[in-house]
Amino acid sequence: MNEINRQIAEAFSRIRQTKPLIHHITNLVVMNDTANVTLHLGALPVMAHAPEEVAQMTRMAGALVLNIGTLTSSWIESMRIAGRAANEVGIPIVLDPVGAGATAFRTQMSHFLLKELKIAILRGNAGEIGALSGAGGQVKGVESIEGVADPAAVALEMARELGTVVVIGGKRDILSDGSRVLGVDNGHTWLTKITGTGCMATTAVAAFAAVERDHLIAAAGGLACFGLAAELAAQKASGPASFKVALLDQIYNLQPEQFAAGAKVVELAGAA
Amino acid sequence: MNEINRQIAEAFSRIRQTKPLIHHITNLVVMNDTANVTLHLGALPVMAHAPEEVAQMTRMAGALVLNIGTLTSSWIESMRIAGRAANEVGIPIVLDPVGAGATAFRTQMSHFLLKELKIAILRGNAGEIGALSGAGGQVKGVESIEGVADPAAVALEMARELGTVVVIGGKRDILSDGSRVLGVDNGHTWLTKITGTGCMATTAVAAFAAVERDHLIAAAGGLACFGLAAELAAQKASGPASFKVALLDQIYNLQPEQFAAGAKVVELAGAA
Amino acid sequence: MNEINRQIAEAFSRIRQTKPLIHHITNLVVMNDTANVTLHLGALPVMAHAPEEVAQMTRMAGALVLNIGTLTSSWIESMRIAGRAANEVGIPIVLDPVGAGATAFRTQMSHFLLKELKIAILRGNAGEIGALSGAGGQVKGVESIEGVADPAAVALEMARELGTVVVIGGKRDILSDGSRVLGVDNGHTWLTKITGTGCMATTAVAAFAAVERDHLIAAAGGLACFGLAAELAAQKASGPASFKVALLDQIYNLQPEQFAAGAKVVELAGAA
Repeated sequence: MNEINRQIAEAFSRIRQTKPLIHHITNLVVMNDTANVTLHLGALPVMAHAPEEVAQMTRMAGALVLNIGTLTSSWIESMRIAGRAANEVGIPIVLDPVGAGATAFRTQMSHFLLKELKIAILRGNAGEIGALSGAGGQVKGVESIEGVADPAAVALEMARELGTVVVIGGKRDILSDGSRVLGVDNGHTWLTKITGTGCMATTAVAAFAAVERDHLIAAAGGLACFGLAAELAAQKASGPASFKVALLDQIYNLQPEQFAAGAKVVELAGAA
Repeated sequence: MNEINRQIAEAFSRIRQTKPLIHHITNLVVMNDTANVTLHLGALPVMAHAPEEVAQMTRMAGALVLNIGTLTSSWIESMRIAGRAANEVGIPIVLDPVGAGATAFRTQMSHFLLKELKIAILRGNAGEIGALSGAGGQVKGVESIEGVADPAAVALEMARELGTVVVIGGKRDILSDGSRVLGVDNGHTWLTKITGTGCMATTAVAAFAAVERDHLIAAAGGLACFGLAAELAAQKASGPASFKVALLDQIYNLQPEQFAAGAKVVELAGAA
Repeated sequence: MNEINRQIAEAFSRIRQTKPLIHHITNLVVMNDTANVTLHLGALPVMAHAPEEVAQMTRMAGALVLNIGTLTSSWIESMRIAGRAANEVGIPIVLDPVGAGATAFRTQMSHFLLKELKIAILRGNAGEIGALSGAGGQVKGVESIEGVADPAAVALEMARELGTVVVIGGKRDILSDGSRVLGVDNGHTWLTKITGTGCMATTAVAAFAAVERDHLIAAAGGLACFGLAAELAAQKASGPASFKVALLDQIYNLQPEQFAAGAKVVELAGAA
């Protein structure tokens, strides 16, 4: 097993041993699915958005997911409060800027969170990251309909500027911490046929970030894990809904040993 | 293939070719299901309800769904803002008055939206449409427990008065644009055993309305499509949840050719 | 069939005959699942939280579920309004204090509802009930990670103090009305692998409470029913998501006769 796959497999085992709490402030569409993904990975989910409690809830979590898929200004305020609590005690925040680029409000609120908070990992599709980086990209609703010309360069530069791991989701996920650039080739086209798979991938990344201090490896781990489960599930799909059932079953049934042969993480650029 | 079935099959193909965005401001219970129905039909879903962004989101959509299933006054205000934007640029609005008749608030808010906005298609169950038309009908929670005596006459008159296509959902769906009256006999009793199938039918109607200017045909298309998928899925059901998986799979697997034999649309009255 | 199983079987039949409306003010994660559980049991679900309508909606219901899983202060206010309406007309309220003990806000709001309203049945996990009773217990997010030393004594005393049936969910559910103490041994470990099964059990309890005036028997009925369906569904599970499909199918397919052999309710203490 190569070094990265070994690190991923070990992180995966740590999720199941330590059962970190993953606090989500996320969108209304995917809450049930991302709670289940969290549980099936071996971690504990909680969804909480009341300003009175988010800071306290975050402080007992291993990671905080902020997902703006059905944002309102009051939810963004709760994200800010939770995010500050996370930053104070060093809990990694994973931000999914769903629909950034589609409306000015989503783009502005994403920039606001990136400015107000120290984000550990930013994960979006090519259109969303393109819009936030200024490198181009177009989003229709929450779908990327135009990416960026050179995702590796965009991820690298944005990661360097923000001091954040940046993930550009796609057929090949591209991720960078500002010095290294990785590609993750796990996944399956069925993932594009059901709603919320980007959000589920973000949740998987957060579960890994709760147990792995190298956030580039954590992100690669979450993406490889989720994508590998999708590959294995695809064999049982007779449509998108039976695929989803098989995907969730498979996330639960996944074993650390399977990463040795199964994880497809490639190093696109080493440390600068 | 008769003329109506041909129009429906062609509209269905256009959904898959053009992938219109369907903007939903809908209830918290069905968001995941209606997002998936939208995707499986071939369109793109987005759920967005923040007043700051709904007008911008609607302007890039092919249709707007307003569904009051878990309404609050602030969501109604977002519906009004989005609806005005839709009316300004000619995007069809499909209104599902979930639970109208059950509480005064739902009845009033439905009338408010019908008055403030130009609604392209109003789709409810017999109790809801009965309550809104004043023709009778009774609703328990969100379930129709008493319909109207003559649904064709109610749909025809209400459509004429409001200048809206009116759909009364039921074993035979009855729909009218104020001159023509159609019946759609596709469907299956399993649809009454899971939550949100009325909302899913509304979503299917909206996807068709995004690509078919004759809104009576669009409504018939959405209903026939959804009902036909239910008929095909019923064969694989061993209970309501396995039916739901099969239904979603089947919506995705449906082909335009299947409408020729499968769509059961009957003309109950021609142009006046 | 013993007397309790007979009462449970009869109550189950009454749900299907009378189709009571179960009004939920519940969390955003489980709404779809609990609506479906309600329907599959034979009752009618409605989710409504607008302060303008909750009182009117509750008055037509057979039971009211209050579940604080994703609470905010405005939702708590709606719970208070709905709860008062329920108390005025004698509709049983079932409270699920999700995450009580995890944050001060959840603990306080649970105490607030218990003080403001006459609660018929309080159902939580061991950590939640422990936190509310002051008997110990620890909650991580919404998961009980430390229970109470003597659940039967805690349930009995808390029930006596509050004048409420108290249910402590677990491998063996413990429930008391302040004089009798019952244990329910139905269930399966798969229930711990998917999100929202506590909330679903609460919904089942509420459906029984709508048709059975002895709320201790109603609670035992809901728990035995839900747990029995889980046992039967487990045979078809190849992971948590296929288990969930089988569970929902099985709730629908359950017949009153199956309680005779299947319900595992034990009397731990008789009337004092």
